[in-house]
Amino acid sequence: MKKILVLGAGKSATTLISYLLEHAQQFDWYVTVGDYSLETATQKVGNHERGKAVFFDVKDAEIRAKYVADCDLVVSVLPANFHILVAKDCLKYKKHIITPSYISPEQKALDADFKAANLLFMGEIGLDPGIDHMSIMKMMKEIRQEGGQVQAVRSFTGALIAPESDTNPWHYKFTWAPMNVVLAGQGTAQYLKNGHPQYVPYNRLFELTETYHVDDCGTFEAYANRDSLHYLDAYQIEDVPTFIRGTLRYKGYCEAWNAFVRLGLTDNNIKILNLEHLTYNDLIDAFLPSTQKNDTRSVKERLAEFLDVGIESDVMDRLSWLGLFELGAKVGKGAATPAKILHDLLAKKWELQPDDKDMIVMLHIIDYLEDGEEKRHTSSLILKGENAEETAISSTVGLPMAIMAKLLLNNEISLTGVHMPIMPEVYEPCLKELEKYGVTFLEKQEVC
Amino acid sequence: MKKILVLGAGKSATTLISYLLEHAQQFDWYVTVGDYSLETATQKVGNHERGKAVFFDVKDAEIRAKYVADCDLVVSVLPANFHILVAKDCLKYKKHIITPSYISPEQKALDADFKAANLLFMGEIGLDPGIDHMSIMKMMKEIRQEGGQVQAVRSFTGALIAPESDTNPWHYKFTWAPMNVVLAGQGTAQYLKNGHPQYVPYNRLFELTETYHVDDCGTFEAYANRDSLHYLDAYQIEDVPTFIRGTLRYKGYCEAWNAFVRLGLTDNNIKILNLEHLTYNDLIDAFLPSTQKNDTRSVKERLAEFLDVGIESDVMDRLSWLGLFELGAKVGKGAATPAKILHDLLAKKWELQPDDKDMIVMLHIIDYLEDGEEKRHTSSLILKGENAEETAISSTVGLPMAIMAKLLLNNEISLTGVHMPIMPEVYEPCLKELEKYGVTFLEKQEVC
Repeated sequence: MKKILVLGAGKSATTLISYLLEHAQQFDWYVTVGDYSLETATQKVGNHERGKAVFFDVKDAEIRAKYVADCDLVVSVLPANFHILVAKDCLKYKKHIITPSYISPEQKALDADFKAANLLFMGEIGLDPGIDHMSIMKMMKEIRQEGGQVQAVRSFTGALIAPESDTNPWHYKFTWAPMNVVLAGQGTAQYLKNGHPQYVPYNRLFELTETYHVDDCGTFEAYANRDSLHYLDAYQIEDVPTFIRGTLRYKGYCEAWNAFVRLGLTDNNIKILNLEHLTYNDLIDAFLPSTQKNDTRSVKERLAEFLDVGIESDVMDRLSWLGLFELGAKVGKGAATPAKILHDLLAKKWELQPDDKDMIVMLHIIDYLEDGEEKRHTSSLILKGENAEETAISSTVGLPMAIMAKLLLNNEISLTGVHMPIMPEVYEPCLKELEKYGVTFLEKQEVC
Repeated sequence: MKKILVLGAGKSATTLISYLLEHAQQFDWYVTVGDYSLETATQKVGNHERGKAVFFDVKDAEIRAKYVADCDLVVSVLPANFHILVAKDCLKYKKHIITPSYISPEQKALDADFKAANLLFMGEIGLDPGIDHMSIMKMMKEIRQEGGQVQAVRSFTGALIAPESDTNPWHYKFTWAPMNVVLAGQGTAQYLKNGHPQYVPYNRLFELTETYHVDDCGTFEAYANRDSLHYLDAYQIEDVPTFIRGTLRYKGYCEAWNAFVRLGLTDNNIKILNLEHLTYNDLIDAFLPSTQKNDTRSVKERLAEFLDVGIESDVMDRLSWLGLFELGAKVGKGAATPAKILHDLLAKKWELQPDDKDMIVMLHIIDYLEDGEEKRHTSSLILKGENAEETAISSTVGLPMAIMAKLLLNNEISLTGVHMPIMPEVYEPCLKELEKYGVTFLEKQEVC
């Protein structure tokens, strides 16, 4: 019997755990699910005879060692910064590890150790990063096999709300870790355009969007996602003059979100005190440039002027809808960072309702030269969830990890070291099985 | 004989070490100066019979323990994040410690331990923070003794270049830690205005400046310095509606510096690669919004448009003077962060020449009510250095620490715990002795 240890039982683990339990009999697996909330882990495991839920505190070295030592494979969906602790235990006790998170430099530095121990650390095998890597590598392989020369790669993903469940002027609801959305983009985005590196600091990220149309779906805006230059080597496209990874939002979102960036409301370091005495209107006031004592304009009017938009503009509509200009409601209790205050407000306003369907949109556009012609291969994925529990994001993050676990435990993969899923022996079986779960791309080839 | 251990022998330690050695015979002191560069420490100690230079690596616990255990008092001018290591050894071996740096929450948390051990951790006793705290507390004490009620406190400091040594269009040279200047203001500044907290994110900090005139000196612009709200409690001014601490620059500096902030060139996290192939012109290009392939404008022209200033404007003059638009010169070698690239360029352009004089400008403006009248007490300090070695900044950072050391070793202070110099028993003797070294404030009282 093979023992799988799943660490973290939150939203991101739902489909992962289901898949592993559903296939446990067939492949002779036993699944232990550890979470800081034993209740959450127990809910996910149910009374399955091949699973158990346990209390797991990643910061407790003894507990970590106990469970890692007693399994064949770890799948960690813990917050990203904890993977390194688990990975080091995996080395110690000779176990493979799979995570959906970006591979940090500290994790990458374990490559030689994982190789020497004949073990695999597979990171970035969720949706984005994950399915995006796999589907782009497959597209490029096919283009190259036909003799095509890749000229530009653009890849965008959005974890969005399906149109039928879209009930607010932001056209957005939280389908995934809300704090990641609030803090998205802090730092400097990097990508390649026409042979030139491009650097975009946070203060301009949500201004420099581009518009893309996705067939059968609609028009979206994209902002650059972190460091695309980092992937030139892994994707083997060092000679390709244009490469960008980006995040998709419905039109208008970025301009409105940029109001928070410009105000400074996404700061997660300073603490605002005495929230029980503060209204949202006061909060906006405190981040607006101060005004003359005799200024009789409302905070809403001053904000519109600050943003250089009309009081009836779409941006102001979105901000008003959040209740930011209501005078009564207090922000909270005690102290919190601006980002946390924003998070708590949005968690209420953008909450996914039980019957809401989320929607994943992924769009790859690859320009290439073939037989002297400029061609474009567009590949798009549109996948909707069932409801607030069975979401498309949970499936698309969880299934690649679950399939990877199966490939490893069935000895169909003999890879060692620290990797992302960019090799055919991983992405081909993964993408093939994902199709059974509705992860099917719409492909389009055009001569430009 | 009392033994003093000075940690760090760089620019910030020059005057400190001189003072301690000069008074060593009189007070029966022995001064050990530790630095990672034994050469630097040796230069500062010379062949003084009551001093010695030693190699000191703060990260080496054994070396730390050895020297801390063998002294009566530690004065640390190491980089601020290292003080905590030394402070914990001070607790272990029962020694006092003095630093010029901002007291971190982690340091403040040692307050009870220092009290229990009957020891003093005096932080923020340099220039700013340091002399500013002391002189404001003295002003407020005098105002309150006369029955005045403080209404507004504004306090600004600039470490600047003296007019006679001002030879560039930025009217600025590095007289102190250059990287601190490059990274200044990252985060969110906080202060109090007319009873309302004001928060200013980095992306607007250098836009929201105010202009102040300093008698006998000139006109300066000020931007908010970090978290002023944090000091309301320490200064006992919780009921005062306006309080701001700020940094002074000559007029025009902030608008030009903001070009770097908007471009994103002050980022210290991402790495730019292949610097041997990159000109400064390329670098600016990479941070500018990308343009059409057929755009024939120069980078300088595009930057002027991006900044919404004329090509002949003061801002563009300053940027041009740095050589940013020259096509030949390469940025460097290997990889570096944008902030490091900027640092290395500015270190050359803004280098203090051997005979240059630096200048400290400090300005306090306290508004108060007395006998029903609105009054203003303005206090200003203008202090020039001798040359690039004997700077005003080195004196004003080092002397308060040196005097504090003397007060402690002579048992004139019996304070314990973690403190900044806001108590009369500290600031009165300190300010009095500082006057002998030219730290004299020009005082002005007006009825508004």
